[in-house]
Amino acid sequence: MPKKPLILVTNDDGITAPGIRTLIEVMNTIGDVVVVAPDSPQSGMGHAITINSTLHIEKVTIGNGNQLEYSSSGTPADCVKLGVKQILDRRPDLCVSGINHGSNSSINVIYSGTMSAAIEAGIEGIPAIGFSLCDYNWNANFDHCKAYIKTIAENVLKHGLDSGTVLNVNFPKLDTTELKGIKVCRQAKANWEEVFDQRKSPNGKDYYWLTGKFVNLDKGEDTDEWALANGYVSVVPVQFDLTAHHSIQELNTWDFNEK
Amino acid sequence: MPKKPLILVTNDDGITAPGIRTLIEVMNTIGDVVVVAPDSPQSGMGHAITINSTLHIEKVTIGNGNQLEYSSSGTPADCVKLGVKQILDRRPDLCVSGINHGSNSSINVIYSGTMSAAIEAGIEGIPAIGFSLCDYNWNANFDHCKAYIKTIAENVLKHGLDSGTVLNVNFPKLDTTELKGIKVCRQAKANWEEVFDQRKSPNGKDYYWLTGKFVNLDKGEDTDEWALANGYVSVVPVQFDLTAHHSIQELNTWDFNEK
Repeated sequence: MPKKPLILVTNDDGITAPGIRTLIEVMNTIGDVVVVAPDSPQSGMGHAITINSTLHIEKVTIGNGNQLEYSSSGTPADCVKLGVKQILDRRPDLCVSGINHGSNSSINVIYSGTMSAAIEAGIEGIPAIGFSLCDYNWNANFDHCKAYIKTIAENVLKHGLDSGTVLNVNFPKLDTTELKGIKVCRQAKANWEEVFDQRKSPNGKDYYWLTGKFVNLDKGEDTDEWALANGYVSVVPVQFDLTAHHSIQELNTWDFNEK
Repeated sequence: MPKKPLILVTNDDGITAPGIRTLIEVMNTIGDVVVVAPDSPQSGMGHAITINSTLHIEKVTIGNGNQLEYSSSGTPADCVKLGVKQILDRRPDLCVSGINHGSNSSINVIYSGTMSAAIEAGIEGIPAIGFSLCDYNWNANFDHCKAYIKTIAENVLKHGLDSGTVLNVNFPKLDTTELKGIKVCRQAKANWEEVFDQRKSPNGKDYYWLTGKFVNLDKGEDTDEWALANGYVSVVPVQFDLTAHHSIQELNTWDFNEK
């Protein structure tokens, strides 16, 4: 019997979140699962890493299943580093992150702890996928995601991914019967229009909450936003070579010696 | 007399760091400067934003110069959002971040708070540059950076930048006389080989420090690492559309319906 794939599972909502519980359940049907995930929610952490503080790991048992689980004080990116370099005795065949409670489509990929974990694994040369559901509800229904997650993970294990590339998968908030399938997309050129909610503390000092409205002016039917709005599961290949190669030629025409 | 450009300055080492003081000094020779920077060091914060906590801003006076200065409890990306949406009454013509105490070349761009601030400004449609010196020393000599920073900032104000693009500028640790000029580069495919330094707490529990060695196997002479090792100032155009467009065709050949 062929050896089962070794799968590292993490997330940014914390190790007890319903989203990661669903992801573990699906991964247990595919391979040997080791979970290394934050001990508390880390949403909006981007690709933060812990360099000025200590890191802690604790072996834990949460829920059923054959998975081994470790809870860590670190960020999602820290969890992947700890899993690969400290906890596992061989390289994982796959790293999956999520299922995030909330969308990581379009520009959200930049702020996402879920995706930073997948990108960290990609940097280590491990095929990796981040999964997110466009529903911020803690008690969201993840059932319609399960079969798709299995299919996408099995495809990545079978085909591999281009070096320097990981997958950003988002699910619309829908029942299974309404989902139209998988669509490979590009990241929509959408962004947040922030508004700061200004308040006064009991001692009279101003403070602020970051709020905002998501605005998508990119109407392309090849975007993740279009796919999600039209009932598809969006799959965006994401790279961490951030070089804007198309700008190099233009920059070389600048005269850096002019005064 | 033409109106002076409005320049937003931030960093990730904190508002009192020598690096940002040098950057403010240079920007004061170009335009009207408003500083919104973290009240404490935020290195390794990546593109973290503060969504589950409150944000504070304090008007401060640090050092000489005509700049207005605000210290914030937020991350570098938060500082840019606060500057643009809350503090400034018109859009800045330029946002500069740094000078970071330490390299943000190659893969470090992913972990960098300095570059996340520049990228945040880019997302807002503001021309932006992150500056870093390859010297972690708090008392590093930034003198050789000054003339180059001025030239690069003035070029960006004159030519603008491609939409969706910001600049990642790194300086080698050298005296001015040794610098060979500016080189437009791509991000080298280098990464960190992490090692966790495992220790025991006084009560017998294991804990870890993240350490590591930077490894560059990319020998391309068009990379930022090559430029820095050979005495050049590296300028990499950085994009925040992370789509790996070259992978879309391949992913479309996968059969997501296979069982």
